[in-house]
Amino acid sequence: MADAAQVNIPANLALTDPVGVAQALIRLPSVSPDPGASQHLLAAMLERLGFEVTHLPFGEGAERTPNFFARLGTGSPHICYAGHTDVVPPGNEADWSHPPYAADIVDGVLYGRGACDMKGGIAAFVSAVARHVATGLGKGSISFLITGDEEGPATYGTVKVLEWMAEHNQIPDYCLVGEPTNPKVLGEMVKVGRRGSLNAHIVVEGTQGHVAYPHRADNPVHRLLAVLAALRGTPLDNGTEYFEPSSLQVTSVDVGNGATNVIPARAEARLNIRFNDLHTGAALKGWVETICRQHAPRSRVEIKISGESFLTSPTQETTALVEAIKQITGRTPKLDTGGGTSDARFISRYCAVSEFGLVGASIHKVDEHTDVADLEMLTRIYQTFLEGAQA
Amino acid sequence: MADAAQVNIPANLALTDPVGVAQALIRLPSVSPDPGASQHLLAAMLERLGFEVTHLPFGEGAERTPNFFARLGTGSPHICYAGHTDVVPPGNEADWSHPPYAADIVDGVLYGRGACDMKGGIAAFVSAVARHVATGLGKGSISFLITGDEEGPATYGTVKVLEWMAEHNQIPDYCLVGEPTNPKVLGEMVKVGRRGSLNAHIVVEGTQGHVAYPHRADNPVHRLLAVLAALRGTPLDNGTEYFEPSSLQVTSVDVGNGATNVIPARAEARLNIRFNDLHTGAALKGWVETICRQHAPRSRVEIKISGESFLTSPTQETTALVEAIKQITGRTPKLDTGGGTSDARFISRYCAVSEFGLVGASIHKVDEHTDVADLEMLTRIYQTFLEGAQA
Repeated sequence: MADAAQVNIPANLALTDPVGVAQALIRLPSVSPDPGASQHLLAAMLERLGFEVTHLPFGEGAERTPNFFARLGTGSPHICYAGHTDVVPPGNEADWSHPPYAADIVDGVLYGRGACDMKGGIAAFVSAVARHVATGLGKGSISFLITGDEEGPATYGTVKVLEWMAEHNQIPDYCLVGEPTNPKVLGEMVKVGRRGSLNAHIVVEGTQGHVAYPHRADNPVHRLLAVLAALRGTPLDNGTEYFEPSSLQVTSVDVGNGATNVIPARAEARLNIRFNDLHTGAALKGWVETICRQHAPRSRVEIKISGESFLTSPTQETTALVEAIKQITGRTPKLDTGGGTSDARFISRYCAVSEFGLVGASIHKVDEHTDVADLEMLTRIYQTFLEGAQA
Repeated sequence: MADAAQVNIPANLALTDPVGVAQALIRLPSVSPDPGASQHLLAAMLERLGFEVTHLPFGEGAERTPNFFARLGTGSPHICYAGHTDVVPPGNEADWSHPPYAADIVDGVLYGRGACDMKGGIAAFVSAVARHVATGLGKGSISFLITGDEEGPATYGTVKVLEWMAEHNQIPDYCLVGEPTNPKVLGEMVKVGRRGSLNAHIVVEGTQGHVAYPHRADNPVHRLLAVLAALRGTPLDNGTEYFEPSSLQVTSVDVGNGATNVIPARAEARLNIRFNDLHTGAALKGWVETICRQHAPRSRVEIKISGESFLTSPTQETTALVEAIKQITGRTPKLDTGGGTSDARFISRYCAVSEFGLVGASIHKVDEHTDVADLEMLTRIYQTFLEGAQA
């Protein structure tokens, strides 16, 4: 712990108690990028459990981001738990009914910034490991991939740690990301992938003219309508077992011609494609460009791929996770690929990955919270998962 | 001639000479609405030829517009020549190589405002009548419908005179409008109708939402694209013997949504339809409204019909006109329905109408002019037409 203030584990804190662990983490503020204290407390807890911790700070100055990789055992399967200690800002603290870093518990609810996103989830995994190792580690090994910059630009976080892990032969067999995946109730949803996203801006040039003599003009609106009709003419796909059908939405069409008797010189459109793993961004880019060339030779297309799709087809570890959720909550989780992005998109380039954590309804809001009962349930799910995956 | 200064026919002017008649008319400036002198000169010429002239001024103050109806004989067929004595302003007179009201003739070309639009045409018809009556009128009768406000709002001109003519049983069997219909060479083109024009402004309301969750939104762009595809899906018609196919041009589509991850709340389009006589404005209005309702229930449509189409199917008089053109020029004129509007649209409500006059390439421009030879040719065409139509 050369690069942060010494942080002590609170006296009398049992690492098998997820509520106590979560409170200790919440009480060390860590708005992104985590300044370090909460992450070093977590590292100290893992060291007490026998983990070998390698601190991996990346970036300089204001971008300096604390990260670490911690591993217990060397056996196979190697299960990694990925998470972040940084949190989003609390906004106006006066708007909170409980101070964001007090970690108050009222009527069975724990309040605080990071309660569900995702110090609560991390605490549950720490306690699950504590209970698991108390009964023996089994044949496998366990690691933590912890970053202090998931809520920010994510430049000096998970991506860099994964590069280090690859260089040091620490890529796991399976990675579980502890993001709050459940919309309303614990056990509803495991995320096994994400759709990709592509934005296109199409500009069609035509030849201006009088509306009474269209043969002397080249109406760019008609060419653009033909492009959009071709792009929308056939569904991209019908969806897959885990993905909704890919979706193309035209978000704007703009000409700005106020003269009713004039065929304009230019027309443009913007569209977004959310695509599943039947497509790649590059293939869709080529498809859009080809259709533009066919229907509007004098057009230009600007395409930005903001993320590729990914999917982890269910592995034996996914099965172990689903079985653990069913056993503890009585619910069969949906294997889903919807919603926004997480660091899972980076991890998916190296190994199988899925995501499961707390209920996320209050993330990024005032009075972020989690049920204390959910913390205990999630701990038991994680422990049951570890036992199942490493059986 | 109670309501204008006395105007004298220049001494030594032979009414059988279209060049002299045209010069006399051009030398009396008559920017729209004609203040009256040029029109009263024309009336005096017709009275000399035996016409009974009824002056029909309409409008008050600045809008006061001189018009007249003149008739020679009472027999049938009754052929009416319709024209206007007003002209468009000359613009900067210094830009003219010949003063706009000098009626100079240089190298066989007569220069002046109104030379071809349409004092030259009127002069040719006056001389044609003068020559025709010199040999006897035949069984028919001839009239002039003259307005001083064709280039302006046309409110107190032809429309009002036609009403008067209907009240007084003076509606002719056939009307020839003397507008300059030939694009480049005398004898190219007779106009027998015009397309109608309709403008539509379509506004589609949707429900805004995140582009990743289109099922929770209602994309108005997609609804508008469906409306436009339906409107453009089937040609309105394949044209007729005298009309080009009707044409629908989308002139603008506007959304103005700069956020790539947002489905917008509203989208709008503007379009113009130029339609032939297979359609009426009212029927097209209903068709556009129905398609909007089908594909975008939450839409509103504003439709403005700026003119109905009309066509005069060839009559025996049209045949006589075409034969006269062929005989004098050696050219077979195209029976056309293209181009802008003229007072023929009003006349078509009462009787068969066609249009034929000088070459119109210089209308409304600096150095408006006509070939002196064309004035003589047109006079002979008109005379041959009168003889053919009244044979």
